[in-house]
Amino acid sequence: IRQGAAEVIYGAGKTPEQIRKITEAFRKKSDNAVLITRMSQEAADLVSASLPLHYNALSKTGIVGELPRKDGNGKIVIATGGTSDLPVAEEAALTAEILGNEVVRIYDVGVAGIHRLLAYSEDLMSAQVIVVIAGMEGALASVVGGLADCPVIAVPTSVGYGASFGGLSALLSMLNSCASGVSVVNIDNGFGAGYMASMINHVSVKNPENVRMQPHHLHEHS
Amino acid sequence: IRQGAAEVIYGAGKTPEQIRKITEAFRKKSDNAVLITRMSQEAADLVSASLPLHYNALSKTGIVGELPRKDGNGKIVIATGGTSDLPVAEEAALTAEILGNEVVRIYDVGVAGIHRLLAYSEDLMSAQVIVVIAGMEGALASVVGGLADCPVIAVPTSVGYGASFGGLSALLSMLNSCASGVSVVNIDNGFGAGYMASMINHVSVKNPENVRMQPHHLHEHS
Amino acid sequence: IRQGAAEVIYGAGKTPEQIRKITEAFRKKSDNAVLITRMSQEAADLVSASLPLHYNALSKTGIVGELPRKDGNGKIVIATGGTSDLPVAEEAALTAEILGNEVVRIYDVGVAGIHRLLAYSEDLMSAQVIVVIAGMEGALASVVGGLADCPVIAVPTSVGYGASFGGLSALLSMLNSCASGVSVVNIDNGFGAGYMASMINHVSVKNPENVRMQPHHLHEHS
Amino acid sequence: IRQGAAEVIYGAGKTPEQIRKITEAFRKKSDNAVLITRMSQEAADLVSASLPLHYNALSKTGIVGELPRKDGNGKIVIATGGTSDLPVAEEAALTAEILGNEVVRIYDVGVAGIHRLLAYSEDLMSAQVIVVIAGMEGALASVVGGLADCPVIAVPTSVGYGASFGGLSALLSMLNSCASGVSVVNIDNGFGAGYMASMINHVSVKNPENVRMQPHHLHEHS
Amino acid sequence: IRQGAAEVIYGAGKTPEQIRKITEAFRKKSDNAVLITRMSQEAADLVSASLPLHYNALSKTGIVGELPRKDGNGKIVIATGGTSDLPVAEEAALTAEILGNEVVRIYDVGVAGIHRLLAYSEDLMSAQVIVVIAGMEGALASVVGGLADCPVIAVPTSVGYGASFGGLSALLSMLNSCASGVSVVNIDNGFGAGYMASMINHVSVKNPENVRMQPHHLHEHS
Amino acid sequence: IRQGAAEVIYGAGKTPEQIRKITEAFRKKSDNAVLITRMSQEAADLVSASLPLHYNALSKTGIVGELPRKDGNGKIVIATGGTSDLPVAEEAALTAEILGNEVVRIYDVGVAGIHRLLAYSEDLMSAQVIVVIAGMEGALASVVGGLADCPVIAVPTSVGYGASFGGLSALLSMLNSCASGVSVVNIDNGFGAGYMASMINHVSVKNPENVRMQPHHLHEHS
Amino acid sequence: IRQGAAEVIYGAGKTPEQIRKITEAFRKKSDNAVLITRMSQEAADLVSASLPLHYNALSKTGIVGELPRKDGNGKIVIATGGTSDLPVAEEAALTAEILGNEVVRIYDVGVAGIHRLLAYSEDLMSAQVIVVIAGMEGALASVVGGLADCPVIAVPTSVGYGASFGGLSALLSMLNSCASGVSVVNIDNGFGAGYMASMINHVSVKNPENVRMQPHHLHEHS
Amino acid sequence: IRQGAAEVIYGAGKTPEQIRKITEAFRKKSDNAVLITRMSQEAADLVSASLPLHYNALSKTGIVGELPRKDGNGKIVIATGGTSDLPVAEEAALTAEILGNEVVRIYDVGVAGIHRLLAYSEDLMSAQVIVVIAGMEGALASVVGGLADCPVIAVPTSVGYGASFGGLSALLSMLNSCASGVSVVNIDNGFGAGYMASMINHVSVKNPENVRMQPHHLHEHS
Ligand SMILES: Nc1ncnc2c1ncn2[C@@H]1O[C@H](COP(=O)(O)O)[C@@H](O)[C@H]1O
Ligand SMILES: Nc1ncnc2c1ncn2[C@@H]1O[C@H](COP(=O)(O)O)[C@@H](O)[C@H]1O
Ligand SMILES: Nc1ncnc2c1ncn2[C@@H]1O[C@H](COP(=O)(O)O)[C@@H](O)[C@H]1O
Ligand SMILES: Nc1ncnc2c1ncn2[C@@H]1O[C@H](COP(=O)(O)O)[C@@H](O)[C@H]1O
Ligand SMILES: [Mg+2]
Ligand SMILES: [Mg+2]
Ligand SMILES: [Mg+2]
Ligand SMILES: [Mg+2]
Ligand SMILES: [Mg+2]
Ligand SMILES: [Mg+2]
Ligand SMILES: [Mg+2]
Ligand SMILES: [Mg+2]
Repeated sequence: IRQGAAEVIYGAGKTPEQIRKITEAFRKKSDNAVLITRMSQEAADLVSASLPLHYNALSKTGIVGELPRKDGNGKIVIATGGTSDLPVAEEAALTAEILGNEVVRIYDVGVAGIHRLLAYSEDLMSAQVIVVIAGMEGALASVVGGLADCPVIAVPTSVGYGASFGGLSALLSMLNSCASGVSVVNIDNGFGAGYMASMINHVSVKNPENVRMQPHHLHEHS
Repeated sequence: IRQGAAEVIYGAGKTPEQIRKITEAFRKKSDNAVLITRMSQEAADLVSASLPLHYNALSKTGIVGELPRKDGNGKIVIATGGTSDLPVAEEAALTAEILGNEVVRIYDVGVAGIHRLLAYSEDLMSAQVIVVIAGMEGALASVVGGLADCPVIAVPTSVGYGASFGGLSALLSMLNSCASGVSVVNIDNGFGAGYMASMINHVSVKNPENVRMQPHHLHEHS
Repeated sequence: IRQGAAEVIYGAGKTPEQIRKITEAFRKKSDNAVLITRMSQEAADLVSASLPLHYNALSKTGIVGELPRKDGNGKIVIATGGTSDLPVAEEAALTAEILGNEVVRIYDVGVAGIHRLLAYSEDLMSAQVIVVIAGMEGALASVVGGLADCPVIAVPTSVGYGASFGGLSALLSMLNSCASGVSVVNIDNGFGAGYMASMINHVSVKNPENVRMQPHHLHEHS
Repeated sequence: IRQGAAEVIYGAGKTPEQIRKITEAFRKKSDNAVLITRMSQEAADLVSASLPLHYNALSKTGIVGELPRKDGNGKIVIATGGTSDLPVAEEAALTAEILGNEVVRIYDVGVAGIHRLLAYSEDLMSAQVIVVIAGMEGALASVVGGLADCPVIAVPTSVGYGASFGGLSALLSMLNSCASGVSVVNIDNGFGAGYMASMINHVSVKNPENVRMQPHHLHEHS
Repeated sequence: IRQGAAEVIYGAGKTPEQIRKITEAFRKKSDNAVLITRMSQEAADLVSASLPLHYNALSKTGIVGELPRKDGNGKIVIATGGTSDLPVAEEAALTAEILGNEVVRIYDVGVAGIHRLLAYSEDLMSAQVIVVIAGMEGALASVVGGLADCPVIAVPTSVGYGASFGGLSALLSMLNSCASGVSVVNIDNGFGAGYMASMINHVSVKNPENVRMQPHHLHEHS
Repeated sequence: IRQGAAEVIYGAGKTPEQIRKITEAFRKKSDNAVLITRMSQEAADLVSASLPLHYNALSKTGIVGELPRKDGNGKIVIATGGTSDLPVAEEAALTAEILGNEVVRIYDVGVAGIHRLLAYSEDLMSAQVIVVIAGMEGALASVVGGLADCPVIAVPTSVGYGASFGGLSALLSMLNSCASGVSVVNIDNGFGAGYMASMINHVSVKNPENVRMQPHHLHEHS
Repeated sequence: IRQGAAEVIYGAGKTPEQIRKITEAFRKKSDNAVLITRMSQEAADLVSASLPLHYNALSKTGIVGELPRKDGNGKIVIATGGTSDLPVAEEAALTAEILGNEVVRIYDVGVAGIHRLLAYSEDLMSAQVIVVIAGMEGALASVVGGLADCPVIAVPTSVGYGASFGGLSALLSMLNSCASGVSVVNIDNGFGAGYMASMINHVSVKNPENVRMQPHHLHEHS
Repeated sequence: IRQGAAEVIYGAGKTPEQIRKITEAFRKKSDNAVLITRMSQEAADLVSASLPLHYNALSKTGIVGELPRKDGNGKIVIATGGTSDLPVAEEAALTAEILGNEVVRIYDVGVAGIHRLLAYSEDLMSAQVIVVIAGMEGALASVVGGLADCPVIAVPTSVGYGASFGGLSALLSMLNSCASGVSVVNIDNGFGAGYMASMINHVSVKNPENVRMQPHHLHEHS
C-alpha cells in the first residue's frame, strides 16, 4: 500500500448515514484505507456495523482498512504542550500514519518545564519533520523550532480559557515565532499538519544528486 | 559554498552603523555570503562604502558575497497574486537563493485571471516546494494548493486597503485554505517563507531507500 | 404569478404559532406564495397541519403556495465551495425561485479543485447574475468574479472552524476580492443574496434603446 | 465609444513613471479612454506633460480620452452621507461615467437630517441602481434600501474617528442592513461600486421577452 | 409612591432562592415596589409562591408591589427597530415605569420602512427623552436623533446574525451616530437605558428660573 | 443670546478657506456665536485675519462671537482622569458654554488617587449633569456614577498606549459601568458630550407640576 | 506542613476517574494536601467516595488533606467587585490557603459604591499583597492600586454581558491601570492570582539586612 | 537615600518646558532623585541646560539626582527576548534602580536559542523577582516562569510586524502562560514592571518570624 492510496472523509457536518455510504463506496472501488476525521461516536457505531472500523474516540478519527507501509524519507515527530492537546495530536498522528509515515509521539512537553522537553533532544534532532501542537501561549513551537534543524509545522489548539480566545493566542504566537523554519496551520487542524508533514516526508526528489545525508544550517544573528 | 554557510542579519531596528559592523565581522570570520533583510537605503549606502554589496531596493534586501551553489533537491517556485507583492516575493526569492536554491518566479498570477495562472501549470507541477504570496483576499494559496502536489508555503501580505486590515484578511484566508498541504507564515514574512522552502528543498534524507522519483497523491473526497 | 406577489417571513425568533398566524393571514389576503426562512422543524410541523407547506429541512425554508412564472431577464447561477454551504445555497435558491427566477445550481466547486469549477465555465458565462457561496477562505468569489462577465453576489458562510471565526475569514476575503463586479452580503445570508440577484435579474429597463444582447468588458490592467 | 472600450489602471503603489508608461501604451493600442484611480498629484503632473489628462484631485482620479456614450439601461444615483465622503463618491461616479453611465449625484444627505434625503425620493425611485456611500454609522444604506426599488450598492468609508475604527463601523452596519436588496463592497472602494453599478446598468438581456418597463416589489412583513 | 422608593435586583447569576430572599427582605423593610431584571421563569415561579409578583416573561422582568405615581417632567418614548428587540424594550419600559415615568411605546419602526417611523413624528417631538433600541445595523438611533429635540439614549441589541457579532455592529453604529444628542449604553442593557431616561425625566432643577417650556436648537452645519 | 442661537462647524476635513467662508456666512446671517471644533492652527490664523476669533489651541476649538447667557437649569461638571484628557475636556466645556451652560471644571482626578476626587464630592452632588472624561482604563466614570445622583455622560479618550488600543479599553470600561445612570459617547467626542449635557441641562419641562427641587434615588442592592 | 508540600491538579478536561487516580497517587506518596481546581460536581462525588474531600461547589475547587500552617510574611487580601465574582475569588482564596497563607476576604466592594470600599481601608493598608477580582469594567483594580502600598494582582472575570466580551473589557481596563504596582493574570484565573500572591507573601529574603518593617512609597506626580 | 524618596514624571504628552518646570520644582522641594520616562531628546536638552540630567536616549529615560542605596531584599533580574526590546528593558531597569534595587540585565536570550537562556540559570534561580520582556510571540515569560522559583513580571513589547498586531500577540501569550507565578503589565510598560518588581523586592515584612532563607515549591501535575 502506498501513500496515494488513502482516502479521506471530513466527517464534520455529515450524517452517520452519509459517512457510511461514502466509506462503503470507497471500499468497493479499491483496497485503499479510508480515514474519517471529526467522526462522532454515533457515526462510528453505524459504520462499525458494516465495516471493520478502528475508531479513536479521543481524536474522533476512524480508519477502515490496513495502514500502508511506512515509506517516508524519515520520521515525523509529533510534540504537544499538554495532555489536552492530545485529540488534535492523534488526528495528526493517524493522518500521518495512514499516509505511510513512521510517527514518534512526544506528548506533554510544555515549555513551563523545559527540561522535560530537552530530554527528548535526540528525537527532535533525528526527525525529518516535526509537528508541534500547543494551546494557551503556544510557545512550544518557537522552542522546538530553535532546537531542531528540520521543518516545523505548528498547530495552535483551542485549549485554554479567557484570553486564549479559542486558540487565537496560540495562533498569533506561532505566526510570530522568532525561530526560522516554522509554518502554521489552522487552529485544531491536526489533519492539515499531518498531511503537510507527510508531504515533506515524502518529497519526491527531482535532483537526486543533491540529496544529503546530514543537515547543515544557516547561521543566524540576533 | 553550501547552505549552512550563509549568514543572516535582520536589519529592522538596527542602525546603518550596527549593520555595517556586524556584516564586516561576519566577512572577517569567513567567506560565507551575508544576507541583510529589511535594510534601508541609508544602511545600504553605508555598507556599500566598504563592502561589495548587492542591494535590492524593492525588497530592501542586501547581499554581500557570492551566491552558493544551487544544491537543493529541486526547484522552488515563488508565485504572487499581484505586482504589489513583489517586495515580499523578492525577500523570499533572495533568501532562497542565498541558501542554495534554484528559484522560479511566477509573478502577478492572481486568481481573478485564473487562466494566466493555469498557463504556468507545468512549472507548478515540477516544483519541489511552492511559495505563494498574496495580499487582499489571499485566494491564490488555495488555488495553487489544489493544483500542485508539493508543499505550499503561503505568505499573506499587507497589500490592500480597508477591510484587508493590514494583511489580516489574507492571513485568515490562507489559514482556512480548503486545499491540503498548505501552511502559513507571518504577514509580509518573505524571509521566513524562503527559509522554510529551502529547508524542505534540502531535506537530508534519513531513509534513502524510500526516496521517490515521482509524486503520488492522496485521493480527496469532496 | 409575478415577483411582487411573494411574501416573506423571517422565522428566526418567532414562535411556531406566530409563524402560522402570519402565514394564514397572508394567504387569506391573496394567492401570493409565502416564503418562510429560518423556520424550525417544529414550526414547519405546525404550519403543515393547516396549510400546504413545502418545507426544505436542509435550509430551514418553507414555501406555501405555487412558485411564480420564471419571468427574469436571464438565469441566476448559484455556486458553492463545498457541500456544507448547501443550507445557505438553498435559502438563496428558493428565495430566487419564489421571486420568479430560473436557478442553475453548481454545488461543491471549491477552488482547491479548480478544474471542477472550470468545467462549468459555460454556465457561468451564460448567467445573468451569479451568487457565490463559500465558507473557510471564501476564495471562490474571486475566481468566479474573474471568469464571469456578470454581477457576482458573494455570500460568506460560517462553515469552518478555528480561524474561520464564524465566517469572518470568508467575509473579509470576499470584501477584498481582486475581481471587479463582486459585492457582498452578510454571513449566511442566503435570502439577501437571492433577493439581490432576483432584483438584478428583473431590472425594469428605463432606456429600452440601450438594452444589449451580448456583454462587453472593461479591460483591466494589473 | 462603448463600455468595454475603457481601460483601468489602479495607481496605488505604482510610480508616476510606471503610470505614464502604461497609459501611453494603452493609448497607442486604441482610442479607448483610460481611467487611473488612486493617482497622486505627482503622477498626474507627469502624465499631463505628455497626454491630455483630466485629473480630479479630490478623488485622485485621472481620465485620458473622451467619455463614452451613456448607453446604460437607466441612471445610476450616487448618494453620500456627508461631504467627507466625496472623494470616494467621485471615484465611483467617474468610474461609472467612463463605463458609459449617466450619473445623478445626491451628496450630503445623511440620515441625521432625514427630510433632506426624502426630498430626493423621486430621483431614488427613478434610478436603475443606487450607490450609497457613508462613513461613521453608515445608516444611509438601510434608509435608501428601504425607500428604493432597485439594487443598492453600499460603500462604507473610513470617514470618522474613534470607534469608527477606520470604516469598520460603517462596514458592519451595511452588512447588517435590515433592508433587502443591499450588497456591500470594501471600505472606500468607490471604483468597485461604480463598476458593479455599471454592470447592473448594462445587463445584457438574455430573455428579452421578460424585460419590464416598471418595477414591482416583494411585499415584506415586519 | 416616589421614584427613590423602588428597589432593583439584578437576577442574572442569582438562584431563585436567593432572589426570593432578597425580595422578601425588601418587602419587609418597606412598601417600595421591587424590580427584578433577568429573572428566570423558575425564579418567577418560586417568588410567586409567596409574593404577588407580576412577571413579564418576554423581558424576564418581575415586579412586586404597585407602580409609583408617574411624576416625571414629561414622557419617555421607547422606540424599537424590530419585534425581536421587544425583550430589551420591555426591560427598559418596566424599569422606567417602576421609577415613576409615563412610557410611550413605538415598536417595530426600523429604518428600512422610514415612513412608518415618520408617522410617529409627533410622539417623538413631544418626548422629554427617547430610548432607541435596535440590533443589526442600529441605524434607528441616528434617524431618531436627527428628528427629535430631546436627549436620545441608544441601546444596541444582540439581535441579528453573522457580522452583527452579538450586537457589536449596532453598538459601533450608535457610538458613531452623526446626530447630536445621542449617547449609548451596553448591548441589551434595557435596564440601564430606562434608568438613565428616568433620571433625565426627573432632573431636579437647581435654577428654577431657567426652566423652559419649549425647546430651542443648535444650528448645525455639515 | 439663547442656546439655539449658536452655530457649529466641524472643522476636520475642511480647508482653512472653507472654514473661513462658512464662518463669515453665519456671521452675516445673524449675531449668533459660532463654534468651530477640530480646527487647525492654520485655519485659526486665517479666520483670525478677518474675524474676532477666540482660539483654544489645546482643544483646537475656535469661537467667534459672544458666549450666550448661562440659562441652564443647573451646572455641568466636567471631570477628567488626567491632564492628557484636557483637549477633549475643553472641547466639551466650550461646547457647553457656547450653548448657554455654567461649567465647573474638575481636572486630573483619576481613580488612582481616589481622595483627590472625593475632595470634590460637593461639586459632584450639586451638578445637574456630569461629563466624565478619561482614557486608559476609564474607571472614573463608574466611580463618579456611583457618587453622583445626576446623569453622567462618559467620554473615553484615546490617551494611553499599548493595550489601550486607541481608546477601546476606556470605551468598553464605560459601556460596562456597574453604576446606573451612565451613558457613553464616541472616543474623544468632547463635542458630543458637551452637547448632550447641555440638552439635559436645558430640558424644557412638559409637566411643570412634577419638577422637583431635590433629587431622590433608587435604592440599589448589591 | 509547609507550602511546597501542596499538590495541584487542574481538573478541566480530565475525567472524574483520572482525577481520582491522580489524587490517590499523590496521597499515597505523601501527606501533602491536594488542591483540585475546575472540578465538576461529578468528579467531586467520585473522589469523595474514596477520599476525605472538601469540595467548594461555588468555585469548583476540591481539597484533600489538611491546610498547611499559615507561614507567609503577612496577609493576602482578596477583594471582589461583585458577588458574581465569588467563584473566581474562592479559587484564589483556597489556592492561597493551601499554600500557607492567611487570607482576608473583602467581597462585593465594587467602585460604584466607593464608600463601601473605603470602609476597608485599614485592611487594604495592612495587606502584604492584594488580589483584586472584578468583571464588567474592572475599575476596582485601579482604585485599590491607588489606595494600597503593596503589590496588587488583578484578575479580570468574565462576569457581564454585551460589550464585556467575555472579560475582555475588564482585562483591558486592568492592563491600562493608571495606578502603579498592579499586574494582571488571565481572565477568571483565580488559581494564578492566588499562586502569585502566595509567592510574593513567601519571598525568601536574600538580603536579610534590608528587610523592612514599614512600607515607604514613591512620590508620584500627576 | 531610600526608595520612597524618588519622584516620577511621565513625560509623554508634556512639553519640554513643562517637564523642566516640574523637575525643578521637585528638586527645590528635596534632594530626591527624579525619574522622567518617555522623555524626548528635545526635553532632555532643555532640562540638561539647567539641571545635571543623566539621559538614556535608548529608553528615553532621564534621571536627575543620585541613585539611592540598593536596599532591596534581593536582586531583580531583567531578561529580554531580543535586542529590540532594550528600550523597554532599560525603562524597567532604570525605574528599578532609582527605587533602590540591584538589577541584573540578561539581554537577548530569546527562546529560539534556549541554550543561551539556560546558561543564565544560576542568575534566574538567585533572583528575588524577574522581569521578562519580549515581543513577537512572547514565549520567554513561560520558559523563565517554569525555570524560576520567584515571581515573574512579564512585559509584552510592540516589537514585531504583521500578526504581532502592535504587541497583542505577546500580550495574549503572556496572559495565557502555562507557568505559575507569572503576571503581566501593559505592552511596552517597562516603568510599570520595574515599579512592581521593586515593590516585591521591598516587601516590608509584617510577620518577621515567617521570613525564609530558601524557596520551596508547589508540586504541579500536568
Ligand atoms: N479535520 C480536518 N480539518 C480540515 N480539513 C480536513 C479535515 N479532515 C479532512 N479534511 C479535508 O477534507 C477533505 C475531505 O472533505 P469532504 O469531501 O467534505 O469529506 C479532505 O481531503 C481533506 O482535505
Ligand atoms: N434569512 C434572512 N436573513 C435576513 N433577513 C431576512 C431573512 N429572511 C427574511 N428576511 C427579511 O426579513 C423580512 C421579514 O421580517 P419579519 O417581518 O420579521 O418576518 C423580509 O422582508 C426580509 O427583508
Ligand atoms: N439588566 C440589568 N443590566 C445591568 N445592570 C442591572 C440590570 N438590572 C439591574 N442592574 C443593576 O444591578 C443592581 C442590582 O445588582 P444586584 O445587587 O447584584 O442585584 C441595580 O441597582 C442596577 O444597578
Ligand atoms: N512609562 C510609563 N508608563 C506608564 N505609566 C508611567 C510611566 N512613567 C510614569 N508613569 C506613571 O505616571 C505617573 C506620573 O504621571 P505624571 O504625573 O503625568 O507625570 C507616575 O507616578 C507613574 O505612576
Ligand atoms: Mg530550527
Ligand atoms: Mg496540493
Ligand atoms: Mg467578472
Ligand atoms: Mg429596496
Ligand atoms: Mg436631535
Ligand atoms: Mg449615580
Ligand atoms: Mg499602590
Ligand atoms: Mg516559576
